[in-house]
Amino acid sequence: MGIRVQKFGGSSVANIALINNVARRVVKAKEEGDQVVVVLSAMGDTTDELLDKVREITSHPPAREIDMLLSTGEQVSIALMAMAINELGYPAVSLTGYQAGIQTDNAYTKGRILNIEPERILRELEQDKIVIVAGFQGMNQNNDITTLGRGGSDTTAVALAAALKADICEIYTDVDGVYTADPRIEPRAKKLDFISYDEMLEMASLGALVLQPRAVEFAKNYSVPLVIRSSFNNNAGTLVGEVESVENCRPVSGVAHDLNVAKIGIFDVPDRPGIAKKIFSALAQEQINVDMIIQGWVRDGRNDIVFTTARGDLEKAIPVVEKVVEEIGASGFVYNDRVAKVSIVGAGMITNPGVAADMFKALANQGINIEMISTSEIKVSCIIAEEHALKAVNALHEEFIK
Amino acid sequence: MGIRVQKFGGSSVANIALINNVARRVVKAKEEGDQVVVVLSAMGDTTDELLDKVREITSHPPAREIDMLLSTGEQVSIALMAMAINELGYPAVSLTGYQAGIQTDNAYTKGRILNIEPERILRELEQDKIVIVAGFQGMNQNNDITTLGRGGSDTTAVALAAALKADICEIYTDVDGVYTADPRIEPRAKKLDFISYDEMLEMASLGALVLQPRAVEFAKNYSVPLVIRSSFNNNAGTLVGEVESVENCRPVSGVAHDLNVAKIGIFDVPDRPGIAKKIFSALAQEQINVDMIIQGWVRDGRNDIVFTTARGDLEKAIPVVEKVVEEIGASGFVYNDRVAKVSIVGAGMITNPGVAADMFKALANQGINIEMISTSEIKVSCIIAEEHALKAVNALHEEFIK
Repeated sequence: MGIRVQKFGGSSVANIALINNVARRVVKAKEEGDQVVVVLSAMGDTTDELLDKVREITSHPPAREIDMLLSTGEQVSIALMAMAINELGYPAVSLTGYQAGIQTDNAYTKGRILNIEPERILRELEQDKIVIVAGFQGMNQNNDITTLGRGGSDTTAVALAAALKADICEIYTDVDGVYTADPRIEPRAKKLDFISYDEMLEMASLGALVLQPRAVEFAKNYSVPLVIRSSFNNNAGTLVGEVESVENCRPVSGVAHDLNVAKIGIFDVPDRPGIAKKIFSALAQEQINVDMIIQGWVRDGRNDIVFTTARGDLEKAIPVVEKVVEEIGASGFVYNDRVAKVSIVGAGMITNPGVAADMFKALANQGINIEMISTSEIKVSCIIAEEHALKAVNALHEEFIK
Repeated sequence: MGIRVQKFGGSSVANIALINNVARRVVKAKEEGDQVVVVLSAMGDTTDELLDKVREITSHPPAREIDMLLSTGEQVSIALMAMAINELGYPAVSLTGYQAGIQTDNAYTKGRILNIEPERILRELEQDKIVIVAGFQGMNQNNDITTLGRGGSDTTAVALAAALKADICEIYTDVDGVYTADPRIEPRAKKLDFISYDEMLEMASLGALVLQPRAVEFAKNYSVPLVIRSSFNNNAGTLVGEVESVENCRPVSGVAHDLNVAKIGIFDVPDRPGIAKKIFSALAQEQINVDMIIQGWVRDGRNDIVFTTARGDLEKAIPVVEKVVEEIGASGFVYNDRVAKVSIVGAGMITNPGVAADMFKALANQGINIEMISTSEIKVSCIIAEEHALKAVNALHEEFIK
């Protein structure tokens, strides 16, 4: 008998009928002989509805109070789920983040899990109960409620699986698993039976929003076997785990794309130590996440620096860049938010030279101009004009997958 | 500088405009130089809406999960209130029952406060913060959330006032204070400036639903000065406190009535020890609250026992009584739910003989038949036909108050 952690997102528990559905699925796992721990998000749009109330009161709410407020969403889900499972004849108990022993740092609205004390959960499991844990939340050292930020319930599930030494952590979502590309864009996209942690991390970061990167990282660090599967059917899903041998890997497992991209270029940046720091810490101070950063060859003691951010951050970024350009004595800057990022990801890329070249060729054959390039050991990303994104994904899928 | 506890019920925080209203009132108290602790109920109909969801799932939810669910209602109010007060420029912090140090027994859905550890609240007050505490909830020794049952927020406020040695506990409600009778029924009803704990306890128990009896009892035991006043105006309200001298008291402070009454009579009950226990423990086992109990003179070794319950409990009570009648060998039973209770309450009654007789006379003058009588040191209650309730209240108010 092993421990099985099952995580269901907000769309899987959006109403009472869906809650009852999930309850039946959980009971099935229990009947198969496992000890079951369930992690839930808030029902459907609950979080947004609560934030609407906040906006009626203030435009700058204290982060601590936001967490006090939002954490009620998951607390409602878990209580209702415990009732639904009890109604099916199986004892269940709901636990808040605090009761589940989830300890976080003090970063309200984007807390990080520091430690989990799983004693209470283990005690309830020993009493043959199904344990329902509120995702997305924990408690800091001051006994105050924190939330983990976007996608935090994934992280809760993976962290609990690690702390409980669970046999499997199942992430239930509204798709069947991880695909070689977004099926809405690439009709021949196939579901992957397996993907490595590293590949999943790149896919997650690259806009294939099946699973939060932080959760994948956690799973990789603690070797938690993950399964991503649909809460609406019984298909097998995609297993996320450690690669046994890089030699046997496909060079490219999937093609990812991200339309939520804007690029900013700063011209004639003086080539002095500390200049890059100046630019990017000014952006960080305004909570602007920078994704790709490109710096080319220095000519005449000057250089261009180009980087990308999420489109929504562009408006915030412009005045920051404007100021920095003046401070560092650059000649000016430009920006463009009509770009997209397409990427190929594969653990076998390391041992397959020429994959990047094949990618550039495939794009060139479609007449697609590459505006920026960024590579890691297991991925190659290109920034292209947004209008070519669809064509690019199809071409890359054709080239590498089928 | 003293500590002031202010409690606002659900109707006072039913929407964001009302929350902002309360925030301004709280800030005013702070500006007057007091340290302020605010206790809140859930917004408007939140609790009922949550219970509607429960009914979609099950008709017998585990009480622990009910408390897990319902406690979110107050948590939402306190977070929004803290934001609203912060928005007015005053630092505020919200605390759940657990964070406020409210420890209860294990009776889910009707928990009792065992102890309050006020250190966290005092620490926040020292930092010049306004402290907002979730009413109606606490935590038991197992770290599980409990709720205090109906009117529990009143009890939270009074218990906090006692633990913090507050100078005053203000209960804000939708009426101006305690009246000599229900103003909707008795147009000449006057607001009382003062009422004793004991009188308030009788008024509260007798259907004048301004304040929960348990909260009054708590206030009396710990000598917490209470004020009951309106959250919609600045009128002075009614002070509830200890009587200085019974001799100076009015014989009758108020007239209470309760239409939520049903009476049950059991005929020819054998006069043996343990028979009353049999009847009333059978009712208690079914969670049926019995109010008045009358047993007359024993004749021929047999007696009639008559008692009253809330109307909603009658349906549950009938089969219990049916069974008991058979077990104890009584001759039969009757019931009637078209009755009402009218009462006069006054701390000065003790030193004024003849008050009860005056009451019976006043009712008789109106041609009202008295079906049951029950007395305590400071009240006389009569059960009469429901149709006469209004007339009875008017007659008694005329006789004793004006």
